[in-house]
Amino acid sequence: MKDRPKILLPDDRYFDPDPRQKEIAQHLYAMVADLPLVCPHGHVDPRMFADPDYSFGSPTELLLIPDHYVFRMLYSQGIPLEKLGIPRLDGGPVEQDYRKIWQIFAENFYLFRGTPTGMWLTHELQAVFGIEDKLTGQSAQGIYDQIAAQLESPQFRPRKLFDQFNIEVLCTTDAATDPLDHHRAIRESGWGGRILPTFRPDAVVNIDTAGWRVNIAALSEITGIEVASYRAFIQALEDRRAYFQSMGATATDHAALTAYTEELSEQEAEAIFQRALRGEATAEEATRFTGHMLMESARMSIEDGLVMQFHPGSYRNHSPLIFERFGPDKGCDIPIQTEFTRSLRPLLNKYGHDTRLTLILFTLDETTYSRELAPLAGHYPAVKLGPPWWFHDSLNGMIRYFEQITETAGLYNTVGFNDDTRAFPSIPARHDLWRRVASNWIAGLVVRGIVDMEDSEEMIVDTAYRLAKRAYKFD
Amino acid sequence: MKDRPKILLPDDRYFDPDPRQKEIAQHLYAMVADLPLVCPHGHVDPRMFADPDYSFGSPTELLLIPDHYVFRMLYSQGIPLEKLGIPRLDGGPVEQDYRKIWQIFAENFYLFRGTPTGMWLTHELQAVFGIEDKLTGQSAQGIYDQIAAQLESPQFRPRKLFDQFNIEVLCTTDAATDPLDHHRAIRESGWGGRILPTFRPDAVVNIDTAGWRVNIAALSEITGIEVASYRAFIQALEDRRAYFQSMGATATDHAALTAYTEELSEQEAEAIFQRALRGEATAEEATRFTGHMLMESARMSIEDGLVMQFHPGSYRNHSPLIFERFGPDKGCDIPIQTEFTRSLRPLLNKYGHDTRLTLILFTLDETTYSRELAPLAGHYPAVKLGPPWWFHDSLNGMIRYFEQITETAGLYNTVGFNDDTRAFPSIPARHDLWRRVASNWIAGLVVRGIVDMEDSEEMIVDTAYRLAKRAYKFD
Amino acid sequence: MKDRPKILLPDDRYFDPDPRQKEIAQHLYAMVADLPLVCPHGHVDPRMFADPDYSFGSPTELLLIPDHYVFRMLYSQGIPLEKLGIPRLDGGPVEQDYRKIWQIFAENFYLFRGTPTGMWLTHELQAVFGIEDKLTGQSAQGIYDQIAAQLESPQFRPRKLFDQFNIEVLCTTDAATDPLDHHRAIRESGWGGRILPTFRPDAVVNIDTAGWRVNIAALSEITGIEVASYRAFIQALEDRRAYFQSMGATATDHAALTAYTEELSEQEAEAIFQRALRGEATAEEATRFTGHMLMESARMSIEDGLVMQFHPGSYRNHSPLIFERFGPDKGCDIPIQTEFTRSLRPLLNKYGHDTRLTLILFTLDETTYSRELAPLAGHYPAVKLGPPWWFHDSLNGMIRYFEQITETAGLYNTVGFNDDTRAFPSIPARHDLWRRVASNWIAGLVVRGIVDMEDSEEMIVDTAYRLAKRAYKFD
Repeated sequence: MKDRPKILLPDDRYFDPDPRQKEIAQHLYAMVADLPLVCPHGHVDPRMFADPDYSFGSPTELLLIPDHYVFRMLYSQGIPLEKLGIPRLDGGPVEQDYRKIWQIFAENFYLFRGTPTGMWLTHELQAVFGIEDKLTGQSAQGIYDQIAAQLESPQFRPRKLFDQFNIEVLCTTDAATDPLDHHRAIRESGWGGRILPTFRPDAVVNIDTAGWRVNIAALSEITGIEVASYRAFIQALEDRRAYFQSMGATATDHAALTAYTEELSEQEAEAIFQRALRGEATAEEATRFTGHMLMESARMSIEDGLVMQFHPGSYRNHSPLIFERFGPDKGCDIPIQTEFTRSLRPLLNKYGHDTRLTLILFTLDETTYSRELAPLAGHYPAVKLGPPWWFHDSLNGMIRYFEQITETAGLYNTVGFNDDTRAFPSIPARHDLWRRVASNWIAGLVVRGIVDMEDSEEMIVDTAYRLAKRAYKFD
Repeated sequence: MKDRPKILLPDDRYFDPDPRQKEIAQHLYAMVADLPLVCPHGHVDPRMFADPDYSFGSPTELLLIPDHYVFRMLYSQGIPLEKLGIPRLDGGPVEQDYRKIWQIFAENFYLFRGTPTGMWLTHELQAVFGIEDKLTGQSAQGIYDQIAAQLESPQFRPRKLFDQFNIEVLCTTDAATDPLDHHRAIRESGWGGRILPTFRPDAVVNIDTAGWRVNIAALSEITGIEVASYRAFIQALEDRRAYFQSMGATATDHAALTAYTEELSEQEAEAIFQRALRGEATAEEATRFTGHMLMESARMSIEDGLVMQFHPGSYRNHSPLIFERFGPDKGCDIPIQTEFTRSLRPLLNKYGHDTRLTLILFTLDETTYSRELAPLAGHYPAVKLGPPWWFHDSLNGMIRYFEQITETAGLYNTVGFNDDTRAFPSIPARHDLWRRVASNWIAGLVVRGIVDMEDSEEMIVDTAYRLAKRAYKFD
Repeated sequence: MKDRPKILLPDDRYFDPDPRQKEIAQHLYAMVADLPLVCPHGHVDPRMFADPDYSFGSPTELLLIPDHYVFRMLYSQGIPLEKLGIPRLDGGPVEQDYRKIWQIFAENFYLFRGTPTGMWLTHELQAVFGIEDKLTGQSAQGIYDQIAAQLESPQFRPRKLFDQFNIEVLCTTDAATDPLDHHRAIRESGWGGRILPTFRPDAVVNIDTAGWRVNIAALSEITGIEVASYRAFIQALEDRRAYFQSMGATATDHAALTAYTEELSEQEAEAIFQRALRGEATAEEATRFTGHMLMESARMSIEDGLVMQFHPGSYRNHSPLIFERFGPDKGCDIPIQTEFTRSLRPLLNKYGHDTRLTLILFTLDETTYSRELAPLAGHYPAVKLGPPWWFHDSLNGMIRYFEQITETAGLYNTVGFNDDTRAFPSIPARHDLWRRVASNWIAGLVVRGIVDMEDSEEMIVDTAYRLAKRAYKFD
């Protein structure tokens, strides 16, 4: 096997080559490498922890089919999603031979050179599965065998990996109408892993959501409140928030196309809500209602203490063809320009000075880092900045984030790292990347005489661990 | 006191760690470290030089209360401005115990890790006040004592510091209606410091300014021209410009929300002006009038030779709560997206080819550096680019500026550095940061074989000293 | 001559100073330094290859007068274009003394310090003309003599340089109505150089082009189709595309102010076309028609296989004064903000999933790299990303491109390098800059443990040579 290239995972990876900076970076990284992982925002399915015997299936089902980062790249090079085993909504035929799909993946793994997905997968393969060969067309089937064998072992049940990964807390993302049965099952199982729900009300709050009226019916049913009026709607939301809190939730999560906010009068809100119930609301009314509900969510957060997360700016389902054939979250959500300064002004003017509110903002438009988000977070007590999000959760994305945000907002108006992933076994790789890039960035401050060693050691522990814990109230 | 960490100010600070680059950077920096400071744009109060015995008050009054960079960060972390001694407009109670405020500041000084404010303050404490300890809750009162003692000494009068700082010229920013009494007092005092006014007409030119009609009345009074018509208004402005010039002014300064320009006919201008006098002008008319007055200002500059500075893109007083309680310039001005290419076209088409005009542009939207400003400055003879402004007056802000502007505009369409500060004792720290970052950037060009040593030595002296002097006509 | 500074062109230029990174960069660069140049997109005049005895004229005519990068910088510093010998459209007097112009250029060559133009010219002077002195006012005339002497030698005919530069293929850009006489002459001459046309239909497709009706008349004449209807217009375009293909074209090229696309019904298209023929089309109709024709061009590309290039976002002829006096392409085209996500959606929804289409996107708005272009290219099979364009074809522009695009799009959704130049002798310098910056970037990935040596060697050959060849179908 001498000619099979070995996988790449040097101990000093992601650090700048300058010897002094690297030495300091390694020192800082060593301080946080083994700290528990705080995972306040993500999309792992709670089902895998509810069932102690949950199995991930085949390597392809674990690593490729659920991960849109992976299959979007293959698709962009002309490989149909059907050939990658992505299920069609209409049940139409897709490739079922997981070894064949794995072979395609391995032959095209070179596409991920220099990408975060490439870094995460390399880390997972080596650190989680102990693979020592590089993934290529030649090594594909041997690696498949190795992973498949391990996935059958009891050591590779999700609960075991949760412990092995040293996860302190893991938050899922759950619809407002979700009964949280898996979360209840986890709690009742006696297993000690801390898995918490997050309240994500988009599907009932954004009246232009496909199937909105069905969602409202579900909201009525789960709350026992007949949601036939705006007032009842607010009551039902508050009811659900209280339930989520009783199940351990510390945060809510909100998406919208833009950051537009506006306070409607109760009459206006009611009128739009009624039109929406009749299926008559206009696009403009939907925008205004979403903007109003963001303000209402801030108000509720002030009252119940749930941390409010907001991430606008993704044009969801850019391609109807993919959406209609395969559903949402299939790699065709594309960012748009985002504006915060004017858009959030109504919300911030009303609630931004209230220290009971924590409003964590995310963006896909990096131009807002230095221009809008850092100046806002450096003024309004309620505003904190979430880590680089989605496409920007990458080595260079993190560098830009640190360099463009911290000079104006300071490190202490940020909230550490979120892995934001559906891919459970990628969690350690993602935190490792953050911890390394942060260590290297802080080491860069030290070698430039900007902070001293004492400060640098505080900063790395803060950004790797403490800031997330504090911001999301896990203390 | 062995356990009190010493303040950090290494001789090689802000330079890249690569030994060869650092050596060249230090060589270049040594060429300019002791050059006089040229300060063509700032907000220092001329009063402090008019009175030879002016005293800065307590350390808190010197370093915290007047500096919105400082208190906005503390506020963002939930510390009320009242607790920081920021005066309320209604005279309501605010903390008066400067030692107590200083203690809060010191305990929270860690918030400034990695920020330009942290770098400036560290420099000031050590280089101006000789403080050797790091500012912490523990060291707070001792450091307060040290600074307070020095502030009482005659060596710490503003005029003494002006000489000690080696300031060649310092421009203030003065309303169009300002009688320039302090400037006259400075001239008549026989003191040799060169303090010049800058003509800032925003409050009379932007008809949507709060209190605009009061300002127009003041303009009438100071000029003896009854400003009851647009024509008289133009005459009064020209009159004031001539007076400012007679007091040494070489430049004007203009702010606006956007960079919109448009030439109105005299009839249109007059009609809007009349509606404004009656309090009836619309928001759109205000925008058009501001756009027109920018063009008029360019015309006047061509005629009288005053350099025209323009910095759009700040959403002033984003929070009415802060504005109403504490007034303007309290850290809640937030940048917005800015557009120059189309917006400035009317002005540039009419005046941009005229070599008698120097139009210095500033931006808070860094995306315009490579996309709009550098291409404009690399074509129109009148356009020059001001240094990185406000939130971008920082180590990384300067690096982005050099990297994104000079390839297209060249160094010679930029105008060196402005400190743009209200905080007089921070001036040396700010110029030092610029000179170091510029030295390091140019050294980076040398080690990459892009410029030779001969060129690099010209470039550093140009950007540290000569370009500002030439652009603002101080020769 | 000891005191004349020698020109600067170190072997390790443009590489990071870190010794290990530089060593790897040099290794990678050595692999590609001598590979043939693939030039799929540019503006070299085919006439110079049609005539075997074509001469470049004087040094000034070769290096300054045709190069807007050069004279725009001189103009920005107040030197009139007339003094630089730029011909006036009205035949008015301009400087004719090329030595005098050269002297002005040399005296102001310091303006290009740190600019790509400075790097290219330095490279050309040394590598093409063997000049060893730095260009200054003092050395100007001696260097002029040296270049002039060489330009008279048969070694400096374009065909000789083409071979000496090791150009594998060079594409020109040609109007849809161009008879391609020079291309035919080249083919018929028996000379082996591969010079191919590119189909650029802007002047007939964008109905707001100055002189559009004249262009349509020319289209009628050259095709023999009476272009009196939209249907005939489409037929004429398809006819011309077929002709271009018969002459070796593999690509089309499209400019527009924005990336707006929209599919019109045939009736709407016909109605707008008829109004345009009568000179009655509105600006909005022009925008819609351009957006529609982009979609039509994509359809045609799917049918005939021509690669489609699209580069929106330049506000052409920003200054009417320059345009009216000197014509287009005189350095006063200025970039504007550009939007792709929503604008291209109609086109991508209809044609973006078709693997027969290659749509290569360029931008002057770097904010779209990480926000829009990389996410789009990382999903749609048809989309590939062109290299950094125009003002961004520079060392820092390339670094930003690699860092902001490849993490999401991967290297394999990019298409290598285009020199995009009118200045034929600058071609080697431009490719050399790309190959060096790419080598250095990839070496940075190696020293950070992101890719291994095996991958890095594939990547450099791909981006320096193979990707362009494959994307433009030169295989």
